[in-house]
Amino acid sequence: MLSVNEAAIDVVDEMICYSEELKIKVHTLDNGSTVIDCGIEVSGSYEAGLRFIEACMGGLGTASLGVRRIGNLPLAFIDVTTDHSCIACLGAQTAGWQIGVREYVAMGSGPARALAQKPKEIFDRIAYHDDAECAVIALESNKLPDEEIMQFIADACRVDVGEVIALVAPTTCLVGSVLVSGRVIETAVRRLHELGFDTQNILHATGTAPVAPVVLDEMRAIGSTNDSIIYYGSVVLTTRGFDEEIFKQVPAKVSESYGKPFYKTFEAAGYDFSNIDTAIFAPAEITVSDLDTGKTYHTGYLSEEVILESYEISGI
Amino acid sequence: MLSVNEAAIDVVDEMICYSEELKIKVHTLDNGSTVIDCGIEVSGSYEAGLRFIEACMGGLGTASLGVRRIGNLPLAFIDVTTDHSCIACLGAQTAGWQIGVREYVAMGSGPARALAQKPKEIFDRIAYHDDAECAVIALESNKLPDEEIMQFIADACRVDVGEVIALVAPTTCLVGSVLVSGRVIETAVRRLHELGFDTQNILHATGTAPVAPVVLDEMRAIGSTNDSIIYYGSVVLTTRGFDEEIFKQVPAKVSESYGKPFYKTFEAAGYDFSNIDTAIFAPAEITVSDLDTGKTYHTGYLSEEVILESYEISGI
Amino acid sequence: MLSVNEAAIDVVDEMICYSEELKIKVHTLDNGSTVIDCGIEVSGSYEAGLRFIEACMGGLGTASLGVRRIGNLPLAFIDVTTDHSCIACLGAQTAGWQIGVREYVAMGSGPARALAQKPKEIFDRIAYHDDAECAVIALESNKLPDEEIMQFIADACRVDVGEVIALVAPTTCLVGSVLVSGRVIETAVRRLHELGFDTQNILHATGTAPVAPVVLDEMRAIGSTNDSIIYYGSVVLTTRGFDEEIFKQVPAKVSESYGKPFYKTFEAAGYDFSNIDTAIFAPAEITVSDLDTGKTYHTGYLSEEVILESYEISGI
Repeated sequence: MLSVNEAAIDVVDEMICYSEELKIKVHTLDNGSTVIDCGIEVSGSYEAGLRFIEACMGGLGTASLGVRRIGNLPLAFIDVTTDHSCIACLGAQTAGWQIGVREYVAMGSGPARALAQKPKEIFDRIAYHDDAECAVIALESNKLPDEEIMQFIADACRVDVGEVIALVAPTTCLVGSVLVSGRVIETAVRRLHELGFDTQNILHATGTAPVAPVVLDEMRAIGSTNDSIIYYGSVVLTTRGFDEEIFKQVPAKVSESYGKPFYKTFEAAGYDFSNIDTAIFAPAEITVSDLDTGKTYHTGYLSEEVILESYEISGI
Repeated sequence: MLSVNEAAIDVVDEMICYSEELKIKVHTLDNGSTVIDCGIEVSGSYEAGLRFIEACMGGLGTASLGVRRIGNLPLAFIDVTTDHSCIACLGAQTAGWQIGVREYVAMGSGPARALAQKPKEIFDRIAYHDDAECAVIALESNKLPDEEIMQFIADACRVDVGEVIALVAPTTCLVGSVLVSGRVIETAVRRLHELGFDTQNILHATGTAPVAPVVLDEMRAIGSTNDSIIYYGSVVLTTRGFDEEIFKQVPAKVSESYGKPFYKTFEAAGYDFSNIDTAIFAPAEITVSDLDTGKTYHTGYLSEEVILESYEISGI
Repeated sequence: MLSVNEAAIDVVDEMICYSEELKIKVHTLDNGSTVIDCGIEVSGSYEAGLRFIEACMGGLGTASLGVRRIGNLPLAFIDVTTDHSCIACLGAQTAGWQIGVREYVAMGSGPARALAQKPKEIFDRIAYHDDAECAVIALESNKLPDEEIMQFIADACRVDVGEVIALVAPTTCLVGSVLVSGRVIETAVRRLHELGFDTQNILHATGTAPVAPVVLDEMRAIGSTNDSIIYYGSVVLTTRGFDEEIFKQVPAKVSESYGKPFYKTFEAAGYDFSNIDTAIFAPAEITVSDLDTGKTYHTGYLSEEVILESYEISGI
């Protein structure tokens, strides 16, 4: 069985080796754990964002960057590919571990989840566990974790705290924007999981989404980065066990919140994710090849109008 | 002189090393030869397809993947580049060696052809031979070769059977679809060869084509994968010895079979390639820079209509 | 502090190792210096062009290639990304060192400039110097430098001549075309520098431009390669210290020379760059995110009309 943590360590070791080039900062805490700041006291980089995505996918995905256009505007886009979408996404990349110790609260994602089996519901269904002796956790936060947090993670993962590495970035920085776009496949896979589909049947996946321009307000940043996926994220899948009734429910357009920048939905929900229809956290469109029948389907569409409303780019 | 087999071995060694990640299966046969299944009993992967293309081009080409659109549909696309198109394509990638031993029949391509000099007509004209002591053969088949087939290939290549590696994939799998799109430059080069052009004059080449959705019927798969090139393949060349009368004959549109999904042509020809006008096996369009004069030419066009008719993607 | 020369050496060492694959020629001169011909007596390659760009950016940028379209024509495009645009561009890639010894005259760029501090005005403002013991210089020339030139460069860089490597290509070859398109970010950064902006504030940059078809006449080549940037170059930046009045002056459209192929401007200026409004050496358009306020701006536009007039591609 592939180990998402061991593969992620290879990616992270290279990040550490090139930390100055990547404009990230590596902290070794007193208890021997390692914290890599990718956007709090440092500016981070596109390259750090791409490697962060790959580490967060347990080394089982690749990410690359290119300039493309929305209407008349050039923007950075991320391409992501994984041939292990169930493990790489649900088993690692999904932000499924709410980490809270005293006042420190951060959403955790990455391969460490496969050691801690967080949340258990996902790991039970995808039947994946990792038994690596090292752990890579990704934290979406504007505060670096201290020794206590790192020990908490080590304990939950049952590894030595000196073998825990945390990659940290807030949403309101370049790496934060890159990371959310890097979840374009993950949103499709997670949505399929929620709809009851056995995601172990997804065999190959590739996707693309624009990188939302950085904004400073966290709630606004959560809005525009998610809009990159909701209104302009495209995913191409091959699968077994295709079910039209399920797959037509994947694109964000089926959500009652669809049609306006996500910030407005978030605001109306009192900035509480639990008040929001989860169907909105999905790519704009998918193309799916059913390997049982050899038929291919498409559903959803991009919305240039809403994405540009969300990004608020001014002509000068 | 560059050795296409030695360079391919480097690519293949890495495929073997990451076989679990690539979802391929490595078999060591009793006679010491190696057979790598990329899509028969395994599901394969995009990454395996890209590496397969590079090995098949004798390590002298690069292939990458991204999501782009045809009309309103997102699809995977392959980009291929080679600065040695004559050797990489005609000397290796061309499917020019019909391998048949008892009931086993498979179309062979890849660098092993440069050892066996198959077909001799091509190698005489391109004046390339390889004298490596290892051989990499690519087989388009839904059956893995056995010891006898591998010995047959070793003998034809005059290498020890323990030094022969076969990469195998049927057309009806993801790797199969990726491989055909990866031939976009090769079809232009082969067509130029057929038209009497000295392909050693082609100095640089880059091209792109969509990856046809996987279909299960082999004849249908041959149809739709070839349509990726015929109706939506683009090639950019630089050359010496440009001849307008020759180059305007390159794009598929000059063929009498042009204008409908290739499956229909194939069916009308009784599924016998020898009954088909070879001019159809060509990219939709080419841009060519003539390095003797510094002038650049373009001919051909994409057909969104025919490619979508061929792919048969249903809206849901 | 990052060393642009040391990082460039890593890239160049790999170019030397794969010189046959890259179709470049490595010359070791009698005084121990190394000259790498990328397009004078050799044909060069796309891959050599990409690595040349990366070396010229002091190893602090990445470049990749893909086929995209302008109107109905497929062309090669370069994507470039750097998270150190001030150092990688102004500190290395900028063609800012006019090298002349006896009859040999060539425009010098690349990391060696950071050792020689050429021109001093730039290095004083960007506050970067390199103290590496090796130097990588890029020369735009159709003549290879001899021992005397290499000694001149070594002396100016205060390194041993045996530690100097020159990458050489004329504008009238494939690598030459690739190199100019690879300057798409550099033109934006240099323009901002000229406008008085502190380019150390630019934190992240990514850009794209088409590769101009090779032409044989040097003046024409200078024209069409620059047009790739002026009429079809796109740059996406994040910055601190955004100033609308400055940034709206970046795109080439503000130049009085804008609107016609650059060759015409160049010809009217008697082929003397000092007679030309420098505002024309800029990308067609930029998107800029201001990290102080979280606002994003766009200015400029692509011109399919002028770029196609410049490239003079004939339908056949």
